[in-house]
Amino acid sequence: MNTESTHRTSARHKVVIIGGGFGGLNAAQALRGSDVELTLIDRRNFHLFQPLLYQVATGALSPANIAAPLRSVLKHQSNCRVLLGEVAGIDVAGKSVLVGGERLPFDSLIVAAGAVNNYFGNAKWEQHAPGLKSVEEATEIRRRVLTAFEEAERSAAGGHRERYLTFVIVGGGPTGVEMSGAISELARHTMRHDFRSLDPATARIILVEGNCRLLPPFAEKSSRNAEKVLKRMGVEVWTSAKVKDIQADHVLVERGSTIHRIETATVVWAAGVKASSLGKMLADATGAPIDRGGRPIVQPDLTIPGHPNIYVIGDMAAATSNGKPVPGVAQGAIQGGKFAAKAILKRVGGTADVGQFSFWDKGSMATIGRNSAVAEVGWLKLSGFLAWLAWLFVHIVYLINFSNRAMVLFQWFWNYLTRNRSARLITGERATHERL
Amino acid sequence: MNTESTHRTSARHKVVIIGGGFGGLNAAQALRGSDVELTLIDRRNFHLFQPLLYQVATGALSPANIAAPLRSVLKHQSNCRVLLGEVAGIDVAGKSVLVGGERLPFDSLIVAAGAVNNYFGNAKWEQHAPGLKSVEEATEIRRRVLTAFEEAERSAAGGHRERYLTFVIVGGGPTGVEMSGAISELARHTMRHDFRSLDPATARIILVEGNCRLLPPFAEKSSRNAEKVLKRMGVEVWTSAKVKDIQADHVLVERGSTIHRIETATVVWAAGVKASSLGKMLADATGAPIDRGGRPIVQPDLTIPGHPNIYVIGDMAAATSNGKPVPGVAQGAIQGGKFAAKAILKRVGGTADVGQFSFWDKGSMATIGRNSAVAEVGWLKLSGFLAWLAWLFVHIVYLINFSNRAMVLFQWFWNYLTRNRSARLITGERATHERL
Repeated sequence: MNTESTHRTSARHKVVIIGGGFGGLNAAQALRGSDVELTLIDRRNFHLFQPLLYQVATGALSPANIAAPLRSVLKHQSNCRVLLGEVAGIDVAGKSVLVGGERLPFDSLIVAAGAVNNYFGNAKWEQHAPGLKSVEEATEIRRRVLTAFEEAERSAAGGHRERYLTFVIVGGGPTGVEMSGAISELARHTMRHDFRSLDPATARIILVEGNCRLLPPFAEKSSRNAEKVLKRMGVEVWTSAKVKDIQADHVLVERGSTIHRIETATVVWAAGVKASSLGKMLADATGAPIDRGGRPIVQPDLTIPGHPNIYVIGDMAAATSNGKPVPGVAQGAIQGGKFAAKAILKRVGGTADVGQFSFWDKGSMATIGRNSAVAEVGWLKLSGFLAWLAWLFVHIVYLINFSNRAMVLFQWFWNYLTRNRSARLITGERATHERL
Repeated sequence: MNTESTHRTSARHKVVIIGGGFGGLNAAQALRGSDVELTLIDRRNFHLFQPLLYQVATGALSPANIAAPLRSVLKHQSNCRVLLGEVAGIDVAGKSVLVGGERLPFDSLIVAAGAVNNYFGNAKWEQHAPGLKSVEEATEIRRRVLTAFEEAERSAAGGHRERYLTFVIVGGGPTGVEMSGAISELARHTMRHDFRSLDPATARIILVEGNCRLLPPFAEKSSRNAEKVLKRMGVEVWTSAKVKDIQADHVLVERGSTIHRIETATVVWAAGVKASSLGKMLADATGAPIDRGGRPIVQPDLTIPGHPNIYVIGDMAAATSNGKPVPGVAQGAIQGGKFAAKAILKRVGGTADVGQFSFWDKGSMATIGRNSAVAEVGWLKLSGFLAWLAWLFVHIVYLINFSNRAMVLFQWFWNYLTRNRSARLITGERATHERL
């Protein structure tokens, strides 16, 4: 009896999932109750709801409100083990993952390590222009934005004050639009009465986008709407504008044939992402092609060519669905994770043909500010208050657990009533800003 | 008219307050509406409710829940300016404070810069045993405690596992008692089902106190009660025990004539505090005596001898009330701040004799764990559930604003029901623990 049970355990199909984001977590949960032995590896001990990081960066929410400990989420899933660690390598031939000096064997592998900021070859810009991919980056941006106002209050008008009161957001996709709107609310409403020698509403917020319009993947009508609302909120929208250089105290932006020098102490990067470095590691190990963003180009079943047991999903994968690229959004990762989990179970059950991944586009949305958002669901293009309500609803629904939902809802409600943002803490190593 | 108003402004009595803790903030608020020109200086942009930092360190609350931006708290107090900066010096003769390269003149000064951890000459211990005085320290302790369980899960039994599962709390005052109880709840309840290869309830939690009983300032009955409850929660209580050394992987504790070597990767310092370095700076500048903890010994009116315009309040001051030392607790700071503010107004109004500061001891309390606390109010000694309810009530009341109160209440309620602690995030520079 005991021998048989041991035998049965060791013969179970071993699944390793790298990454506890939307893709990895949904894959793990889709394998709940199945007869596989599952290990989820992540560098962090929590799942993070990245689309709301900009609210952490502007003091509206705390990091824990948009995070959930992975062990807590998976604690009652007895076939799943969580391992905290950094993946050092993937041994494709030996069917194992190297993590923390150990070798973890797998029969099937799901790689869902997500994306990092892409500075397109200008790695030096990172120190001056953090992006919005991690809790640490979000609290660092919060520190920089709030400290800039503090430094402005201490600087004489005509001195460095204007520089401190200028905020440049690079990238006019949803993150850039949301971040610009949030800084505007912070300056013009939340902190309205906070200073004695300056009016924070005089802050200059510049949103720089290379394309001829904001929110390029949205319909033109939505782009126009977002631009109109942002302008009403005091945000300068610079489209068809390209960042040429970022330094500690200024940014160079090319617009038409002119190079503009913008004096600023605070730059936020929202211009693009690339696959985690695991993308390249996997491509090197398997010979799989990768795209410009370092994403392995996967088969219609989300596997690496020639490796039907290695799946790449979410922001890390260059996947197509019905001939169109799958966008790097939460829905793409969620659906990819579920598909990969089902495909593994089919193959374990003896079915080699698992079909093709088909992405169901549930729509796109971006909030701009109080009462205002754009949302597109199929042919339906919403904007204004209704789109904003839809945005609120969808974001609450996708938060991982009840207490996070309740805490976020309460804070949104309270911030809406009072225009307050109570998580405006300047924390971190450098308690004071490097002075210019 | 304009000239007169300018003249009147420049003639207003200038009050500078250093520190936005309980003392400084209450002093500032007590000067609301009075005809003084007030500047509140702090290194941080927020007021922090330090008594609840241990809940941040154990993942029950987020930092922002127990903090309030100073500008936000004081935004409608038009006679008060907030200045973010580090005080570099106090020019007593020149009646000015040096901050951020500027010289800020004062007529009256309130120094309320609080306390820091006191390692009693063993500065090297700090890196291995952070205390609970700042948000950064609390999140660092949270990182260490949670990472220790992660490392234990990855270590083989008999290897480093026992070391990672041993937690030493130095100091059996309220902070040490609360911290030990909270780690016990975390290990035995919150994370009960979180691991696959270890039982977190096997964690060893050792509370080391030099005195012959816990909570020395409390009545013996309360000490006995706290010890009994902690033991029931699995905490080892080592009284009459003295820490001789703290290293990265062990602690040496002297008990009786024996030196015990405790293998541990996680030590929390709750053994004592000393005045901020401004205490010594002020003593050097004024010739005032300081006590062993670096606290300037103040007059009965809380001023420095020979300087009736310089007040020292809160944890920084060695003050007496009716012949007894004023304890370094929130109430001492609050009442000191209000007294100093009133004394300044009296002196501005021409009354030199401002009377003596009299501390009204509203009682002491410490929570031990779920449903259990000790509380002493005058002759009344409570313990158990009733003391715990009193503790909850008092801590909610002293939180600074409505949204913090609501958020903390909700989380406490939810944590109580589910035994969850959702702010269990491992964040910070070192995402993984230094391996032993």
